Amino acid sequence: MFQVLINEVREKKPLIHNMTNYVTVNDCANLLLASGASPIMADDIKEVAEITTLCAGLNLNIGTLNQRTIEAMLLAGQQANNLNHPVVLDPVGVGASTLRNQAAQRLLNQVHFAVIKGNISEIKALALKSQTTQGVDAATLDLVTKENLHEVVSFAKKYAKTLQTILVITGPIDLVVDENQAYAVYNGHSMMAKITGTGCMLNALITAYLASHPQDYLLATLNAVCMMGLAGEIAAKRLQVFEGNASFRTYLIDAIDLMTPEELIRGARYEKIS
Amino acid sequence: MFQVLINEVREKKPLIHNMTNYVTVNDCANLLLASGASPIMADDIKEVAEITTLCAGLNLNIGTLNQRTIEAMLLAGQQANNLNHPVVLDPVGVGASTLRNQAAQRLLNQVHFAVIKGNISEIKALALKSQTTQGVDAATLDLVTKENLHEVVSFAKKYAKTLQTILVITGPIDLVVDENQAYAVYNGHSMMAKITGTGCMLNALITAYLASHPQDYLLATLNAVCMMGLAGEIAAKRLQVFEGNASFRTYLIDAIDLMTPEELIRGARYEKIS
Amino acid sequence: MFQVLINEVREKKPLIHNMTNYVTVNDCANLLLASGASPIMADDIKEVAEITTLCAGLNLNIGTLNQRTIEAMLLAGQQANNLNHPVVLDPVGVGASTLRNQAAQRLLNQVHFAVIKGNISEIKALALKSQTTQGVDAATLDLVTKENLHEVVSFAKKYAKTLQTILVITGPIDLVVDENQAYAVYNGHSMMAKITGTGCMLNALITAYLASHPQDYLLATLNAVCMMGLAGEIAAKRLQVFEGNASFRTYLIDAIDLMTPEELIRGARYEKIS
Repeated sequence: MFQVLINEVREKKPLIHNMTNYVTVNDCANLLLASGASPIMADDIKEVAEITTLCAGLNLNIGTLNQRTIEAMLLAGQQANNLNHPVVLDPVGVGASTLRNQAAQRLLNQVHFAVIKGNISEIKALALKSQTTQGVDAATLDLVTKENLHEVVSFAKKYAKTLQTILVITGPIDLVVDENQAYAVYNGHSMMAKITGTGCMLNALITAYLASHPQDYLLATLNAVCMMGLAGEIAAKRLQVFEGNASFRTYLIDAIDLMTPEELIRGARYEKIS
Repeated sequence: MFQVLINEVREKKPLIHNMTNYVTVNDCANLLLASGASPIMADDIKEVAEITTLCAGLNLNIGTLNQRTIEAMLLAGQQANNLNHPVVLDPVGVGASTLRNQAAQRLLNQVHFAVIKGNISEIKALALKSQTTQGVDAATLDLVTKENLHEVVSFAKKYAKTLQTILVITGPIDLVVDENQAYAVYNGHSMMAKITGTGCMLNALITAYLASHPQDYLLATLNAVCMMGLAGEIAAKRLQVFEGNASFRTYLIDAIDLMTPEELIRGARYEKIS
Repeated sequence: MFQVLINEVREKKPLIHNMTNYVTVNDCANLLLASGASPIMADDIKEVAEITTLCAGLNLNIGTLNQRTIEAMLLAGQQANNLNHPVVLDPVGVGASTLRNQAAQRLLNQVHFAVIKGNISEIKALALKSQTTQGVDAATLDLVTKENLHEVVSFAKKYAKTLQTILVITGPIDLVVDENQAYAVYNGHSMMAKITGTGCMLNALITAYLASHPQDYLLATLNAVCMMGLAGEIAAKRLQVFEGNASFRTYLIDAIDLMTPEELIRGARYEKIS
């Protein structure tokens, strides 16, 4: 059973700098507060280096990137690197446009990421510069399944090694992979795909865990991925027949707020697969 | 009884490109997901043509327009036109500033809209370049009532013909009008005016319906308008005495998520008025 | 017992121009609607003067400021001043970056604010150009307590006099201070710190009250501060054991929507302390 880090986040209350899309930013802020962390959002190039200096981690998300904020993300990322703060990338929709592809490649070239999280299409688009991203969802052909799990893991370990990062590949099964190890996480619920922002919130949560437990980023990431998936399960159980995706959104964040270490220990479903 | 298209949206899961305001964008995303469609938001001029190419419809909303995004909207609109994707305009607050008026006129001149949705003040501001818009609500004098319904319809049909579009004029009674036909929709609830974004969400929903049923835009629009109004009624019924507008917001999106074709057939209240 | 102004807001339905951060803007809009006011958001420099002219009050919040919107805020503030509309400042995170400090000082130099609301760190950063802001939360050392209350009040009265404004200093105890008088407000609940945006919403609410009751800004501000804190208490009471911060957010806005004058009279806990 893994070491549960919930209380570390709650005790350290890390301040997280978020440069994220305007679609789900409110959910990211409330989720960070639910986790025990504290959010700050700032995206002007004139202040991001100072802001990130005050923080313990940097969450970058290109969901609604623009030419102005890309430059600010690069600067913030470099400053966070200088300070040894963890930087986490959510390359939302990479593969869907040249701008996203170029921005993502510039980020990879100029910033070291502790963790990069995306669906398999996004991670493949990063790695192979492929063009199969369909909006923000993984192209169906690219889903991680039991059949292709080992193929995906092998690809991910190599790419994690190249980037010296941890890759989180989300889907019905989530993978947490560095160059040496790979974990599969079976937590989660199909309702999570019926609201916007579960991926963005996960990226924020990972950042909070890394900032709270810098001594073991892989463990911290695994904690965040299990916790988010378990929160989805708890939220789905709470849903009554007359409640839909908007209620689920509320319940998901509530579940992060209320989760106990015991719940996470009992509920986390993962295995080391290599 | 009209043909109900709910299941077409759910089966086709159209990807909708939204260039919309940052106030209600999260609600638009969750509403699209509730309807069965899938949202993507992108507003940088360097990527909007590519993004809209991947999508099946384009939702333009000028609620928090700025000089940068206006140019991007024009480009995205033209590209969507080239591809025969439906483009739907929500001219939020037109009439309230010169910038909005000019942006709206440029959009009308350079982009063909399948549907334009606004309250009567906004539609009049577009048509007459009048200045009676009071914020984002229709000036009281301009409300569509039983008394002036035929006058409004006559005006709307002429303007719909000029623009070769479908006009949706929202209010206590909603009108769906093209150059030949006009429908009045009686669905809706007064609580819908107590939350932000019902108009924005309707515009997104219309886009999803058009993208799913391109063979009959009028029918698709009528479906969306009835569905949104009925969702408001269902949400209002669910409210308990200690619940207010924020609960209503959740219930409204829930109602879209859970609505069945049978519910919509039973609940839609509309009539052809010319 | 103070004069309760809830019904004035509901009767006058003031249109409020909000130039605020993209994190909590949706909550600000729904809170204003809950209060009876009506929100409009606009931040392009080409339209803010016209938009604010249509409105009855201007809410400025620098939470996600950028170089473009700072200039627009200055222009809107000056135009609102010209028209004698109340302008309310939420200097979010001032002290955390040079950009915020400079923007705040420019705003103070060029715009007269009816009310400035912040936590003690932010207000001190404004006044002393100190650098103790920790993200958006008051540095613990700087909290207003019973012990240092009179010291804080004395400082606040002097600074309020210098700026000819009303200062609202938020914390476990909220202070409402002008150059002559000071009130302590004891309403509020610790859950309010577990969601993003309570400060932003309070700033919006204050603007709505000022716009509705221009004859007595101090009374109007006191109403808004008590109402917001009481709404937090009501929301917290409604929480069940399985409900967390996201449910609290919904209940907080609901409480504003449903609050009666009688509830506010009974529930307001404040005292004149000088």
